Order: sequence, then C-alpha cells, then structure tokens
Amino acid sequence: MMKYLIIGGVAGGMSAATRLRRLDEQAEIIILEKGPYVSFANCGLPYYLAGEISERSDLLVKTAAQLTKRFKLDIRQNSEVTAINRTDQSVTVKTAQGTYQEHYDRLILSTGAQPVVPAIEGLDSAQHVYTLRNVPDVDQILAQAKASQKAVVIGAGFIGLEIAEALVNRGLQVTIVERGTHVLPSFDIEMAMFVQRALVQHGVTVLTENAVTAFEAAGQTLVLANGQTLASDLTILAVGVQPATQLANAAGLQLGLRKGLIVNDHYQTSDPLIYAIGDAIIVKQTTTNQDTLISLASPANRQGRQVADVLAGKNRLNRGSLGTAIVRVFEMAGGSTGLNESQLQAAGLTYQVLHLSGKSHAGYFPGAETIWLKLLFQPQTGELFGAQAVGPDGVDKRIDVLATAIKAGLTVDDLPELELSYAPPFGSAKDIINLAGYAAQNLMAGDSQSVQWHELAAAMAAGAQLVDVREPAEHQQGAIPGAINIPLDDLRQRMSELPKSNHYIVSCASGLRSYLAERILKQNGYQVQNLDGAYALYALMQPKD
Amino acid sequence: MMKYLIIGGVAGGMSAATRLRRLDEQAEIIILEKGPYVSFANCGLPYYLAGEISERSDLLVKTAAQLTKRFKLDIRQNSEVTAINRTDQSVTVKTAQGTYQEHYDRLILSTGAQPVVPAIEGLDSAQHVYTLRNVPDVDQILAQAKASQKAVVIGAGFIGLEIAEALVNRGLQVTIVERGTHVLPSFDIEMAMFVQRALVQHGVTVLTENAVTAFEAAGQTLVLANGQTLASDLTILAVGVQPATQLANAAGLQLGLRKGLIVNDHYQTSDPLIYAIGDAIIVKQTTTNQDTLISLASPANRQGRQVADVLAGKNRLNRGSLGTAIVRVFEMAGGSTGLNESQLQAAGLTYQVLHLSGKSHAGYFPGAETIWLKLLFQPQTGELFGAQAVGPDGVDKRIDVLATAIKAGLTVDDLPELELSYAPPFGSAKDIINLAGYAAQNLMAGDSQSVQWHELAAAMAAGAQLVDVREPAEHQQGAIPGAINIPLDDLRQRMSELPKSNHYIVSCASGLRSYLAERILKQNGYQVQNLDGAYALYALMQPKD
Ligand SMILES: Cc1cc2nc3c(=O)[nH]c(=O)nc-3n(C[C@H](O)[C@H](O)[C@H](O)COP(=O)(O)OP(=O)(O)OC[C@H]3O[C@@H](n4cnc5c(N)ncnc54)[C@H](O)[C@@H]3O)c2cc1C
Ligand SMILES: Cc1cc2nc3c(=O)[nH]c(=O)nc-3n(C[C@H](O)[C@H](O)[C@H](O)COP(=O)(O)OP(=O)(O)OC[C@H]3O[C@@H](n4cnc5c(N)ncnc54)[C@H](O)[C@@H]3O)c2cc1C
Ligand SMILES: CC(C)(COP(=O)(O)OP(=O)(O)OC[C@H]1O[C@@H](n2cnc3c(N)ncnc32)[C@H](O)[C@@H]1OP(=O)(O)O)[C@@H](O)C(=O)NCCC(=O)NCCS
Ligand SMILES: CC(C)(COP(=O)(O)OP(=O)(O)OC[C@H]1O[C@@H](n2cnc3c(N)ncnc32)[C@H](O)[C@@H]1OP(=O)(O)O)[C@@H](O)C(=O)NCCC(=O)NCCS
Repeated sequence: MMKYLIIGGVAGGMSAATRLRRLDEQAEIIILEKGPYVSFANCGLPYYLAGEISERSDLLVKTAAQLTKRFKLDIRQNSEVTAINRTDQSVTVKTAQGTYQEHYDRLILSTGAQPVVPAIEGLDSAQHVYTLRNVPDVDQILAQAKASQKAVVIGAGFIGLEIAEALVNRGLQVTIVERGTHVLPSFDIEMAMFVQRALVQHGVTVLTENAVTAFEAAGQTLVLANGQTLASDLTILAVGVQPATQLANAAGLQLGLRKGLIVNDHYQTSDPLIYAIGDAIIVKQTTTNQDTLISLASPANRQGRQVADVLAGKNRLNRGSLGTAIVRVFEMAGGSTGLNESQLQAAGLTYQVLHLSGKSHAGYFPGAETIWLKLLFQPQTGELFGAQAVGPDGVDKRIDVLATAIKAGLTVDDLPELELSYAPPFGSAKDIINLAGYAAQNLMAGDSQSVQWHELAAAMAAGAQLVDVREPAEHQQGAIPGAINIPLDDLRQRMSELPKSNHYIVSCASGLRSYLAERILKQNGYQVQNLDGAYALYALMQPKD
Repeated sequence: MMKYLIIGGVAGGMSAATRLRRLDEQAEIIILEKGPYVSFANCGLPYYLAGEISERSDLLVKTAAQLTKRFKLDIRQNSEVTAINRTDQSVTVKTAQGTYQEHYDRLILSTGAQPVVPAIEGLDSAQHVYTLRNVPDVDQILAQAKASQKAVVIGAGFIGLEIAEALVNRGLQVTIVERGTHVLPSFDIEMAMFVQRALVQHGVTVLTENAVTAFEAAGQTLVLANGQTLASDLTILAVGVQPATQLANAAGLQLGLRKGLIVNDHYQTSDPLIYAIGDAIIVKQTTTNQDTLISLASPANRQGRQVADVLAGKNRLNRGSLGTAIVRVFEMAGGSTGLNESQLQAAGLTYQVLHLSGKSHAGYFPGAETIWLKLLFQPQTGELFGAQAVGPDGVDKRIDVLATAIKAGLTVDDLPELELSYAPPFGSAKDIINLAGYAAQNLMAGDSQSVQWHELAAAMAAGAQLVDVREPAEHQQGAIPGAINIPLDDLRQRMSELPKSNHYIVSCASGLRSYLAERILKQNGYQVQNLDGAYALYALMQPKD
C-alpha cells in the first residue's frame, strides 16, 4: 500500500488527492495544509470582499469533513511542513500541539505561490497593509475596509484590479499605484487602456509609472517615487506572486526561473520520489517551449489530476501551458491567451498585429456590445501566437475559442472556417473571430497593409498623408491632427484630390471603412496603408494634449 | 472587364458582391433579387415578430442605396430571374415593367432555400396559413398575429420554435404540431426534451408524433392524424426548407441530394461559368465527407466571400461544413455542432455517448446556471464527432469551443488540456468541457463504464441491480423503480449489503456521485456501470406513468 503525502490542500493538492483516491482505493493519502481551510476558492476572495459573494461559507468549495468522508482522506489543517527530510523520506510537521515526522512513499508539493512583498521603507512598522491569498487574509482586509475611507492598491495585475473594484463597491476611495506604463501588465498597453479607462470612469485614481517608496505615519501616509504622498486607511500589496518554494529549496530540490520548481514532464522534481504541481512549478509555454510561471487555477487543477494519473501508473504528460486569463473590471472584461507583444519580442519571434472591433452578437439584436480584439500571428505562416480581447460581453467566449485554436495549432487561415453558433442573441453570421481571420488573410496576401498606432507619427513625419474616411460630422468631433477628411462614400468621386505621388494612410473609426478605402485606392494605383484600430485606438492612446 | 451577375441579394449573394468589389474595383457587378429587399436579416425575423427587435428598419442590415454607393454595385430588387440561358450566357429577368435579358461572364447563384409546403388537404383554400422567409412574410404574419388568439405552428425545428416563442410573447395561445418524436429534430431526443420542457412550462402545447392532415373551415380548423382538431387563427408552416433550385434545374444544372445544387470545391456547378453558394448547394460534412444540406447564415456568408476569392483568382477551397447551430427558446439555449446519434448511425460510425452537467461559471459565484452537455466520440481513438448543449447561459461558448476542437481534429484527450479563461464570473477552474474530457478519458480507459438511459430497462431486466447513491431525502423525492438507496458517503461502510455476484448500475442526480461510487465498487471487485446522466435524464425521459 502506497503512502502519499500532499503538501498544500487547495487547487492542485486537493485535486491530486481526490483523483488519487479514485484511482487507488487502498492508498494512504495525507494532506498537510498550514492554513485553517482546504479546498477553498482563492479566486472568489475578491468577490467576497466586494460583497458579491455574500456568504463566507460559499468560499469553501468543499469542507475538510466532506472530503474526508467522501474520499477517505487524512486531511490535516493548521499543519505546516517545516522540512522535507529526503534521506529518510519524511517531512516535519508543525502544529499548535507540537512537531512530528511523517513518512512518505511519494510526496506531492502543491504549495502554491505567495504574494511578493517588496522591501519598502517603513513597511515593517506600517499598519493596515495586507496581501490577499487566503481566507484569513480576506477576513482581515474586510474588517479594515469597513472601518476605512481611503485605500491604496499597489500593483495593477489581475488581483490588484479585482481588489480595487471590490473596495470601490464597499464605498472606499481607491487609488492604484503601478510601476509599469499601464494596468494589467500581462496585456499590451493599448488593450489595457480600455480597462484602465473603465477604472477611471468608476472613480479609481490610477497612477502608472509610479511606485510607493516609503510608508510613513504607521502606514497612513504613502510616499511615491514622484514625491507625492497619499493618505491610506487600507493598503493592499498586489505586486505579483512568486512560487512558494522555500521548503523545496531547503530540501535541496532544483529550482529555476524566479525560484520556481523544476519538474520533468511527469511532474517529478530532481528527487524522483517528490512531485510538484501548481503555482510552484515552472512550465513550458506551448508556443515558445520556454520556461514560464503561470499562477492560475485551471492549470493547477489539471496538473493535480495529471500527477495522480502519473502516480497511479497512467501515461500522462505535462503538455505545457498557453496561459489563458480573464479579469472583470466593473462592466469590462479583459481576456488574453498565448503571448503578448513583449513576450513575442523577448522570444525573438516575428509577428503581425491586428486590431478589430465587432459586436458580441448580431448588431441588429438588442444588447449587442462592442468587443475589441487584438490578434498576434506569424506574418508568413499565419501561426497564431496570442490574442487579447476587451469588452462588456462575450470576451470569454472569443478568448476560449482562440485558446482552443492556438492549442490545436490552427492558423489565421483557419479562423474564417470556424463554424461558431449563430442566432441573433448569441453571435453574428460573421463572428469577430471569422472577421479577424479575414483581415489577417488580407494582410498575409498583401491585399491590405497596416500601420500601428505607435508607428503613425513616424510615418507622417516621413511624409505620409493621413486620410480620414469617416463622415464630416465624425471628423469634426475629433480627428488625428494632419488628417484630411474624404468620406468613404465620396472617395471614388474625389480621388483626384489625392496626388498619386504621395504615400497615404487611411483611417476611420474602427479600421473597417478605411480598409474599404484602402482597397479602392490600391486598385487605383495608390500606395496606401490602413491605420490598424483607426481613430478608436488613437483616441485611447493619445489623449488631448 | 468582367461582368458578374449574382442571383439572390442576401446572405451569400451580397457577401459575394461586396468581396468581389474589394478584389476587383473595375468589374461590373449586378445583383438580381426578386424580393423588395436585399441584405436583410432573415435570422432576425422571428425576433421582430416577437417584438424584441422593435424597429422594422433594424432588419435591413444594409440598404440597397448604401451598398450601391459604397460598393459601386448595380442592385436590382423586385427582379426575378425566370431563366438561365446558358448557351448565350444570359439570364431572363422579370420585373413589374417587363422582362429583359442580361448577359454574364460569370453567374453566381445564391438563391437560398424555400420553406417546404407539404401537400395537406384543404391547404389551398385555407386562410392565414404562412411560411416565414423574408420581410413581406413577417409583415403578413405580424398583422395577422395582432388579430389572433390561437396559433398553430406546424414543425418544431429552429424556426418553428422561434416563431412559437414569438407568438407567445405576443400573447397568443400556441400549439406546436411535430411529426417526429421530439422538438428540434437535429438534436437527439433527450437533449431536445430539455427545450421541450421549457416550451411546456411557458404554456405552449407540444404535440409530437402527430401531424396536421387537413385544413377545414378555411383554415380555422386543423385536423390531426390522431383525429383531434385544433382551432387556429394563425397557422405557420415550418416543416423545414429545401434548396431553391428550380431555376438551376430548368437550366439543366446538376442537382443531387434533396435537389441541392452540386458544386465542386471551387463552388462551380456543372456549368463552369456558373457558381453557386449558400442554402442552395450541397456541401460535404466535415467528419463523414458525405453530402449534406446546411441552411445556415454563417456558411452562406463564408461561401459568399470564398466564391468571390475564387472568381478573383485566389486559391480558396470549400473545406466543408460541420454544422453548428443554436436556438434560444425562452430562457433556454440549445446548441449543437457536428453529428448527432442518428447521423452517426446513418454514417455507420461507432460512437460513445457521454452526458454531463456543469455550471456556466464558478458555482460559488452568483448566477451560475446548469448546462447539460452531450458529447459523441469515437470510443477507441477519441475522435470528436459532435456535441449538444442546453442551458440558460454559456451554451454558445461551449458549443463554439467544441466546434473549434472538432474542426481542428482534436480528440477527447485534448479537452482536459484546453486552457479556457477562468475567473469566477466567466468560467470554472475545471470547465464542463475539461470535465467532459476527463469523463471521456475514463470511459476510454475502462475506468468507468456507462449505461445510457434507454439501455437501463433492458439491463435491469437482465438482472442488474440499480443502486441510487443520492441522499435518502433525494431518493424519496423521486427514484427509478427497482433502485436501492445507499448514499455515496455510506457506501464504504455498507458495501457488504451488496453481494459481489450481482451486476450493479449506480445512479445519482447527475452522474458525478455515481461515478465516484463506481470507482469505489470497481476497486472492491464489483461489476458495475454508471448510469450516464443519472436520475436527471431518467426523470426527463420517463415521466410518471
Ligand atoms: C485573490 C486571488 C484571486 C485569484 N483569482 C484567480 C482567477 O480568477 N483565476 C485563476 O485562474 N486563478 C486565480 N487565482 C490563482 C489561483 O488561486 C492559483 O493559481 C491556484 O490556487 C494555485 O493552486 P496551488 O495548488 O498551486 O496553490 P494554492 O491553491 O495556493 O494552494 C497552496 C496551499 O499550500 C499551502 N502551503 C504552502 N506551504 C505549505 C507548507 N509548508 N505546509 C503546509 N501547507 C503549505 C498553502 O497554505 C496553500 O493553502 C487567484 C488567486 C488569488 C490569491
Ligand atoms: C426565419 C429565419 C430564421 C433564421 N435564423 C437563422 C439563425 O438564427 N441562424 C442561422 O445561421 N441561420 C438562420 N436562418 C437561415 C439563414 O437566413 C440562411 O441560411 C441564409 O440566409 C442563406 O443565405 P443564402 O444567400 O443562401 O439565401 P438567402 O439569404 O435566403 O437569399 C436568397 C435570396 O435569393 C432570392 N432569390 C431566389 N430565387 C431568385 C430568383 N429566381 N431571382 C431573383 N432572386 C431570387 C430570394 O428572394 C432571396 O432573397 C434563418 C432563416 C429564416 C428564414
Ligand atoms: C473540488 C476539488 C476538491 C476537486 O474535486 P474533484 O473531485 O477532483 O472534482 P469534481 O468534483 O469537479 O469532479 C470531477 C470528477 O468527476 C468526474 N465527473 C464529473 N461529472 C461526471 C459525470 N456526470 N459522469 C461521470 N463522471 C463525472 C470527472 O471525470 C472527474 O473525475 P476524474 O478526475 O476521476 O476523471 C478541488 O478542485 C478543489 O479543492 N477545488 C477548490 C480549490 C480551487 O480549485 N481553488 C482555485 C479556484 S477558485
Ligand atoms: C453585410 C453584407 C452585405 C456583407 O458585407 P461585408 O462588407 O462583406 O461584411 P462586413 O461589413 O462585415 O465587412 C467585412 C470586411 O471588412 C474587413 N474588416 C472588418 N473589420 C476590419 C478592420 N477593423 N480592419 C480591416 N478590415 C476589416 C473584413 O476583412 C472583411 O473584408 P474582406 O472580406 O475583404 O476580407 C452581407 O453579409 C449581408 O447582406 N448580410 C445581411 C444578410 C445576412 O447575412 N442574413 C443572414 C444572417 S441574419
């Protein structure tokens, strides 16, 4: 009879335990969890803080008692493993009652990640500064939120933004301080700006390219890098997470990228009796096959099941991770899958960018919302590298379809072929994903050539003439400086106003009408490019100055 | 300069026209449309009838005037083509002003499909009997609906059900008469029954395995096959559509399956100068490569663009159709992709069935709704054949992901690997699609063996003992006759009550707990199968008798 010890009883650990039991009714399975709860919904914590999840008990997906009974598990909460003693195959467990050793045949580490706590001056003596990882954390934050008016969230990743929204819902005045150029560092800047705009519209103060350099007055005053100070009754540190691998490190297990655990594709660490899964491990990014850390619940759950399969003798391999994530920020959702531009650059991959807007369902059916989609692909082969989408509705569906397409190795040429369900309340006869395939095909065929928003100034400086093909009324409400206005439907008649010797860039509201203009001009012998994302992106990125 | 004639100016035809123009600024493009409108939203008609789309003008996606200007098209409404004169490459056009001939270099047929009008006694002299295909049709139906109290919808396909719902919304008392065993003939019966239940709950009378055999009293009385009569102020014929190919047939073009037009993979008919697309053509079903008819807007739109590409000299092939469809029926959505059981049987393919229920998003987050998913796959290779899903929310997303997976040739083994976006408002750490992959892997590995709802009676008659592992309270509220009740969490203790010589079938509410029971029993040496879909499906299919 095998004796399995599992350290960490939440997403990865408990998934491994239950699957192990399903595959091996006789095994001894012990789960050691340092916190008071197992199997809780980390991902629900911000929503409990917001009051959207009203019952604290709803955060406990399964209680230890339920799991013990159903899966014949030996679950030990408030039991911290303080050492792995590899030579005698045991761990040292610390409890309120004392310390003991527990032997293992196989050990599974699912210790997760822990919030990064930056070394900021005065942090040690600061009060009401929190990180959020578990139920006790949220209890503390909620108690303090009820007694607070001003909150500062340091870090604008997924968790930071979810907490910011939650605190706004609780009536607090919230400021976000982010070191990077934009919120949601895993998104490219222009896509993140849609979300950032929503935050600002909901009264959140967003300070980017800034940082908290010191806590003063026991944490009630925050000093920023630019000298400014902020008053705060409640401060959240949400500057990212790091693999919780101190224990593994102390035991001499091999660590890699950012102290993540190195495992082989059977989840085996450098000690063949010790396996690891979840936020703690390094995985291979599907496209680049490079090492990466992905701190998400789905991979942790999947890996939990897979490691159990491996231990039960099934041939199950870790096939890598794409990295698909989504966040809701007020009425906006932001989703992403695969690689973004900075990751593509870091990997040295050549890529083409495409922005497109479309409707969540048939435009003529009530409630259709605008989705902005960004597609990244290999310009010669059409290989799909990544996608980002933002909008109030239907973002999850598009990202999930594209995540599936990328995982399956489809190319942009396959996107028009996807037969997505269409009835007016659910989609469009040409879904935005099909349209993205069309537009990508046009770029690959050279039928269309695009200029990105950040390339426009240089192109115009080099002499390109910008032509805005929107209606005069639209042009008057705001236009890109230097643009001349010839509405699309007048273009054929007014083409003579455009000397053929010039190079032109066409723009409209979204890029659709300007694409039509591009085709007309190209076929009349003009040198012309389409401004990708058109005025919508320009206006988002270049606010009035 | 090429001269293109396009017959039919809606989904396929107008998509071909606009793309042709984008690829060929000089070509002459004439669209001949017999109706008063081009480019209208056929799919929106039932929602306009319902009042959900309140403006009639919203049905006109693009007007002829807009399209003419933007795409330099020659659009001729109220112009019916009455003959194709292949020898002199012309068509005969009938208008209110008279008849004329128009020459073509290339001809595109996108004549669509037409509602089947069955030969029912008394139909000729019946009044207020309608079919729904275009705007004039809906105008008539709407006018009559406003003056009616009782309506009968003959045929329970997508359009029939949408119309039924629309008429209920307008306050009518609606009866559906369907010849088949269930509504939504393209679904398997048990999945369709979820939708049928919603209809009944909303007051619709659903008469299946029945037919209207005669109209009496000028259409006010409908006589049914079972002798019953129905009073009707408004009767809709919605018994399906057939390719509108009379014109093509008269011109001697080759027809095939159910009088659909035969085209090669460049959309060329048996006359190399004549192309055809949309509802009128026969396509290859992706999985079986067999001929099929698919009357849906997405394929028509896609084919429209593709035929333009072909004509403009691009290498574009018709890669076949999977057939993905969705319908909303009151609060329920029903979606399907790929093949259903009867299609699989007809194609002679061996398949495994799997039913699963799951939540539209994290169960602990407010608003999570139940989705029922049915997966059909090859039991040895795991090849995905088809999927059907029903539920109030998230059905479109799951069907779209599975449609993408099938198109990409993924197997059930790939489903757990799909990295779908997860945050509590959008999904689950293990999406129902991942879970379906898990359950399918278990079936393929023999870790689980299932019995379908329709196999249960025979299995029990052959001596299998049914064990209901739900809680006693659940069991008492309704159980399958002959089942003994041993709650899952007591099973390990009470196993001795089950003689090992017997064969067992386990059941619970959805199939999850009974799967857990199956694993416990199997590992204790029992012969046991899991009732797929469990009591939920049983109760749906075997109403109290
Ligand atoms: C606020 C918040 C919101 C999130 N939202 C999302 C989301 O929307 N979507 C998403 O995909 N992911 C989200 N995540 C991430 C997701 O929760 C994690 O990726 C996932 O839980 C990782 O699983 P794991 O098993 O690796 O680690 P965890 O689930 O964190 O479990 C690790 C456990 O190990 C225990 N442990 C660690 N060291 C020891 C030790 N020495 N002895 C005993 N026990 C130990 C810890 O106490 C912890 O309970 C969120 C996380 C947080 C904190
Ligand atoms: C009520 C209704 C609801 C629908 N709902 C959905 C849905 O939710 N989802 C979905 O995917 N599909 C739906 N469809 C189907 C979808 O509308 C069709 O699949 C699509 O329009 C087919 O495109 P097509 O170009 O082949 O034919 P159509 O769009 O029907 O266009 C054919 C045109 O050709 C014209 N024509 C025919 N013969 C001649 C002639 N001899 N001379 C001149 N003109 C001629 C007709 O007048 C017609 O306007 C629905 C259809 C209807 C009727
Ligand atoms: C809940 C938890 C204990 C895992 O439990 P689990 O039993 O593995 O998962 P589920 O209850 O979803 O059941 C899945 C199993 O049921 C099977 N199943 C589900 N429905 C079924 C059906 N209708 N028929 C047959 N089998 C079915 C699946 O195949 C799977 O079994 P397998 O792994 O042996 O193939 C673990 O995921 C957990 O602790 N979660 C909370 C923590 C967390 O994830 N936090 C981060 C996100 S907030
Ligand atoms: C509307 C209709 C006329 C087609 O018009 P269309 O111009 O082909 O389609 P769209 O307006 O969606 O534009 C799509 C084009 O714009 C391009 N495009 C869209 N957004 C773009 C962007 N941001 N940047 C660049 N190109 C873009 C696409 O690539 C595509 O061009 P391509 O085919 O040359 O590659 C036709 O579909 C129709 O008549 N529809 C109504 C009838 C119908 O479909 N009924 C059934 C369903 S209810």
